[in-house]
Amino acid sequence: MRTAARIFAEKSYHSTSMRDISRETNVSLAGLYHYCRSKEELLFLIQDNCFGRVLERLEKQLEEVKDPVAKLSVFIENHLSFFAANMAEMKVLSHEAESLRGDLHAHVSTRKDNYTKLARKILQEVQDASESKQPVDLTVATYALFGMMNWIYNWYDPQGKLKVHDLAQHLTQLFLGGFVPGLPLEPVSATVVTRRTENLSIWNHGLHR
Amino acid sequence: MRTAARIFAEKSYHSTSMRDISRETNVSLAGLYHYCRSKEELLFLIQDNCFGRVLERLEKQLEEVKDPVAKLSVFIENHLSFFAANMAEMKVLSHEAESLRGDLHAHVSTRKDNYTKLARKILQEVQDASESKQPVDLTVATYALFGMMNWIYNWYDPQGKLKVHDLAQHLTQLFLGGFVPGLPLEPVSATVVTRRTENLSIWNHGLHR
Repeated sequence: MRTAARIFAEKSYHSTSMRDISRETNVSLAGLYHYCRSKEELLFLIQDNCFGRVLERLEKQLEEVKDPVAKLSVFIENHLSFFAANMAEMKVLSHEAESLRGDLHAHVSTRKDNYTKLARKILQEVQDASESKQPVDLTVATYALFGMMNWIYNWYDPQGKLKVHDLAQHLTQLFLGGFVPGLPLEPVSATVVTRRTENLSIWNHGLHR
Repeated sequence: MRTAARIFAEKSYHSTSMRDISRETNVSLAGLYHYCRSKEELLFLIQDNCFGRVLERLEKQLEEVKDPVAKLSVFIENHLSFFAANMAEMKVLSHEAESLRGDLHAHVSTRKDNYTKLARKILQEVQDASESKQPVDLTVATYALFGMMNWIYNWYDPQGKLKVHDLAQHLTQLFLGGFVPGLPLEPVSATVVTRRTENLSIWNHGLHR
């Protein structure tokens, strides 16, 4: 699935054949079809795993957090660290959202909606806790936040100088400052930092090296 | 080109054939090849026109503007109003950036770089004019701004309740508040509003209905 995600990201789902995936993985076509019924099921598994794992990790990290601003920091840090570790999958999520059909599409859409709703709920809590005179529209704010974060697959190099934790700090400062003007920045640094030993690839479920 | 952009946006550049475009435009294949040598040239013309027109309109609107914050407002308003009027082209720009090769790719990349550099220069001016104690990294800020704006093709309906001018106001407030904390919001409303009569489709160059 990791290899399939990389090929889908490189040349698009529609231009990729099961034969391409067979060639790159050194698994025979018959072997591939033993594990998944179709190319569409492969795309579904990638998208479903992505949303499933990012949501599962978020809910776990949010368990102990009460303060709305701290929740938002955790949300941003989780999203970015997770996606920085899965850039190909992230591009596939963003570019191939409409490539699934029927039940598979409905299933992934529901997961995505739940994730979006959770983000919006956190933003609502932050806004309620503040006393902003001129609040930013919540829908615009929610998608602006996703836009800022998801756009990183176009420019960010996880192996480069800027560490993902610092990226998260900058984006949190940028977003919070506009969303809740006048908020002191202290709580932002109290985010849950990803453990260095944690493996965030979605293909290592349950394994923490 | 408008039809080609719509089909590329719907089913991706790689999955679209010249025959598809011929069918949708009611122009014969021979006719299509009379106007452009290849599908790749068609993609190039769409991307090149997009960047060309958005940059041209921006430079014109910036001519009279001196204040850095006002410049940034003009930049955001121009980008959003332009792209809201060309949602299919915007998706093609974002999804098919790597589908061009060689000289065509280099040409569009140069245009895109120039546009990005102009945005970064405006942000630098805004930052210099402010006295922020904890400035946000300029690279992160530049791409965060593009992310917020470009992501709209995933959720924004230009025909819906939220007008593009109001969308621009919200995003400007959100971005500026975080980028330059403590800035009074007055100058933001002094943006150049798109004339109602102006046709922003990239395929109406020079025609103002």
